[in-house]
Amino acid sequence: MTNAAPLAPEFALIAQHFRPLAGQGGLGLTDDAALLTPPPGRELVLAADAMVAGVHFLPEDPPETIGRKLLRVNLSDLAAMGADPLAYLMTVALPRATPASWLDGFVAGLALDQAEFGLQVLGGDTVSTPGPVSLSLTILGTVPPGQALRRGGARPGHTLWVSGSIGDGALGLRAARGEIPDPDGYLASRYRLPQPRLALGRALRGLATACMDVSDGLVQDLGHLARASGCGAVLEAALVPLSPQARGADLGLLITGGDDYELLFALPPGALPPGNMAATRIGHFTAGPPGVLVLDKTGQPMPLSHQGWSHF
Amino acid sequence: MTNAAPLAPEFALIAQHFRPLAGQGGLGLTDDAALLTPPPGRELVLAADAMVAGVHFLPEDPPETIGRKLLRVNLSDLAAMGADPLAYLMTVALPRATPASWLDGFVAGLALDQAEFGLQVLGGDTVSTPGPVSLSLTILGTVPPGQALRRGGARPGHTLWVSGSIGDGALGLRAARGEIPDPDGYLASRYRLPQPRLALGRALRGLATACMDVSDGLVQDLGHLARASGCGAVLEAALVPLSPQARGADLGLLITGGDDYELLFALPPGALPPGNMAATRIGHFTAGPPGVLVLDKTGQPMPLSHQGWSHF
Repeated sequence: MTNAAPLAPEFALIAQHFRPLAGQGGLGLTDDAALLTPPPGRELVLAADAMVAGVHFLPEDPPETIGRKLLRVNLSDLAAMGADPLAYLMTVALPRATPASWLDGFVAGLALDQAEFGLQVLGGDTVSTPGPVSLSLTILGTVPPGQALRRGGARPGHTLWVSGSIGDGALGLRAARGEIPDPDGYLASRYRLPQPRLALGRALRGLATACMDVSDGLVQDLGHLARASGCGAVLEAALVPLSPQARGADLGLLITGGDDYELLFALPPGALPPGNMAATRIGHFTAGPPGVLVLDKTGQPMPLSHQGWSHF
Repeated sequence: MTNAAPLAPEFALIAQHFRPLAGQGGLGLTDDAALLTPPPGRELVLAADAMVAGVHFLPEDPPETIGRKLLRVNLSDLAAMGADPLAYLMTVALPRATPASWLDGFVAGLALDQAEFGLQVLGGDTVSTPGPVSLSLTILGTVPPGQALRRGGARPGHTLWVSGSIGDGALGLRAARGEIPDPDGYLASRYRLPQPRLALGRALRGLATACMDVSDGLVQDLGHLARASGCGAVLEAALVPLSPQARGADLGLLITGGDDYELLFALPPGALPPGNMAATRIGHFTAGPPGVLVLDKTGQPMPLSHQGWSHF
């Protein structure tokens, strides 16, 4: 703990870097708090996620992607609830030696995603840390009352679906570390910039009986969905959608690795996902005990060395 | 980054420690996000603050007070806006070696303050860090539309007031470190457990022309208020309210030290604070250039070695 310089760097930082991001409700980030008139006739949806350098992203990742990854991880939570993005607050703990160019890149990335996803920053805090860069973000979204997607509505006989492709994030981490080839940069980009499935989440309102986003490994997260719904889940590993870049990799790794940020959801018997949405049926729900049975392409239980990724 | 144990500790932690804190909107902390029906006819007030061990609290502080301090720092932001508390989300980055007893104490403290201040946790995230304990909290409150207290309404001739007493937090940090005597523990307690002035903030709605909370030193924070209001401020140091425990300490330290969490506000000429609220007039606003003039007891400009505390 030190005495402050006459012009406190905290305020200079906020003013120079973060203020241009602030929307009207953020009061230019100059008041003690932000004001927000809730959109009439909507429920609010709120989630918070944290990321630490060396745990959830690589310290050498481009600063332009780091804030965007945190924002998109939170947007993925909104997608899982079928919500529309509204606004966010963020706190940033930075080592004192953080160069201004890093902050410029960090903020520039956030500005891109604010425009892409139509949301604004309402407030936050910038503090110093003797440890690694630590970020925390709280996101606000809205849904029509009673229409939020939940985890607990899957029933025996419902089908199990997943969006996009699985395993790119886990491979992308290895690619970003230079451990595996990634000639077109696709895998590292999937690790650094998840694609929140907001349009699919919205389209699943009133249709999916359960939904969540896959962040800690498909098998482990399916276990959460199955337990919340009180039924068993059968995952047919051979049906799991893979990108061309992931084909040939160890399937056990792909279905237990983290950082997918795809939507995992249940549909009633006979129902199909909305027309133009990329989603693949990968299994079904049973009356068995709450949990996950993973079958290989021959229909036999598939041995897995672990269930998924834990951030702790 | 490691592979997960079969029963991911992240989920065990959340389940064991944080779930009992969750209110109805938090969905038991088991869904991807929380749902909140905004109170009809109110504006939302939102703020976020972060705290890092060794920067904003002492690593050896009792875990019971650490979460409460962060909650109260955020509640103080609501008080500064004249808002009523509603709910919060929190993210917690912990070293892997954090003992369960620390988490128990941390959560027990939060439970006390949830009851005391009438608010619930809606969600959050628990992650690991190779660095110090890093906490982030986003708070939500409400105000009647248009009645939030802001920083920009002080005008020349308005009087300047502050709640409670100033300087106890700065002395309390030294007391908590064992650097100065603190026979009754009052000073350390003021550092560890700020008292958010929520009742005063509410009572100032429609009365104060500007308001903020003092967190980074009275002189520095008054500078923010003066600049936001576009006028000068004169602070009469001899009028600054001191606790019996702080009398005799260096006045320059007391009015520039951090961690006060008192309300600093402006009233129109002739107006007085609401009847039973402890507040002291400490100066006035002028037509001078935006900034602060600190006068000593003889009416002469008072030399200060620095303006206040920066968290960066």
